[in-house]
Amino acid sequence: MIPTERRTEYKRKPREERWSELLNVAAQVIYEKGYRAASLQEISDRLGIMKGSLYYYIRSKEDILFAVLQNIHEIGLANVTSLAGQGGTAIERLRRVIRGHILFIAEHLVDTTIFLHEMKALPADRQKEILGGTTSYPKLFRQLIAEGQEEGSIRGALDTELTATIVLGSLNSTYRWMRAGDVEAAERIAAHFGEILISGLIAEDEAL
Amino acid sequence: MIPTERRTEYKRKPREERWSELLNVAAQVIYEKGYRAASLQEISDRLGIMKGSLYYYIRSKEDILFAVLQNIHEIGLANVTSLAGQGGTAIERLRRVIRGHILFIAEHLVDTTIFLHEMKALPADRQKEILGGTTSYPKLFRQLIAEGQEEGSIRGALDTELTATIVLGSLNSTYRWMRAGDVEAAERIAAHFGEILISGLIAEDEAL
Repeated sequence: MIPTERRTEYKRKPREERWSELLNVAAQVIYEKGYRAASLQEISDRLGIMKGSLYYYIRSKEDILFAVLQNIHEIGLANVTSLAGQGGTAIERLRRVIRGHILFIAEHLVDTTIFLHEMKALPADRQKEILGGTTSYPKLFRQLIAEGQEEGSIRGALDTELTATIVLGSLNSTYRWMRAGDVEAAERIAAHFGEILISGLIAEDEAL
Repeated sequence: MIPTERRTEYKRKPREERWSELLNVAAQVIYEKGYRAASLQEISDRLGIMKGSLYYYIRSKEDILFAVLQNIHEIGLANVTSLAGQGGTAIERLRRVIRGHILFIAEHLVDTTIFLHEMKALPADRQKEILGGTTSYPKLFRQLIAEGQEEGSIRGALDTELTATIVLGSLNSTYRWMRAGDVEAAERIAAHFGEILISGLIAEDEAL
């Protein structure tokens, strides 16, 4: 049985704050158990509310996953879009985006992991609702690399799309081994990625 | 009900061939459904045998996962170990390993995906039985990068261990978007990785 005072405390908070707390707790449960095995019962237990009270916020477990994925995608994409737009050569902007994306992953490791693991658990139309905007991670990286190739700083022999996929996929792969919230480690990882990838992209052309 | 002739056909094959077929079919089911949701019933249905017959080969679903992961780890590690041992400078060997590992992932995409997703589903002692040998992927990449730094071809300012983790993690991340068995695409991906990573590692030192 859940203590009444915890329930009361939860209910006393403003609705927006409770929604945000619900998403954080749900994300943690999904992160630990995987989406399939995560249960509304466990989420409500950890929140200290009755399971039935969840239906005041959501209609289904899928609604929670959708909200978590939509939120992390939106703030992550806003982060790299802002960094890419802050001026400088394409190389300077790409270096800034690489660093900022790594720091973002470290800061949002739970939600990023869910984003990279559980998107397929959503129906196609809800995936599209999240990913189908006019901007996207792949587009942003493609554009930066294309601009670098136009300005002559990134080697023209590299396939723009494949290179963007490799760069973005390599950065994202850090979620598998990064420690959450270790900012110092994240800065070192970002510096290494910046050096290796940027040097790799700007090196002189060889036949591929 | 499973047709008798398929059962008979399966039973008529040599034991080693049936075991190998069992692992292939099981890997496909685990790949499609995830380990938790994969059932012995579905595996036996696809093999065209009675579920009870599976216990002639294994004691539990976990035994199948263990066998799939042990096998893919063993042949993958043998692949890169062989490539790393074929002579040349550290950079030449690293380039050969990068290409060979990408081609291996493309050729074994189902098993590689299971390896990268489901290892945690095994108990710690069985994980250790697979990963705890005297050689390992991380060790092999660390060693090649350390040798490159000793011979002066890879920048000394890069942290050996972190760089090895980045290189191996970046290569492995291709399982997320590579198409199975498309050798031509795999060769292009391998060429791009080789160019970007090798150029990135050998570029002149800057302060990190």
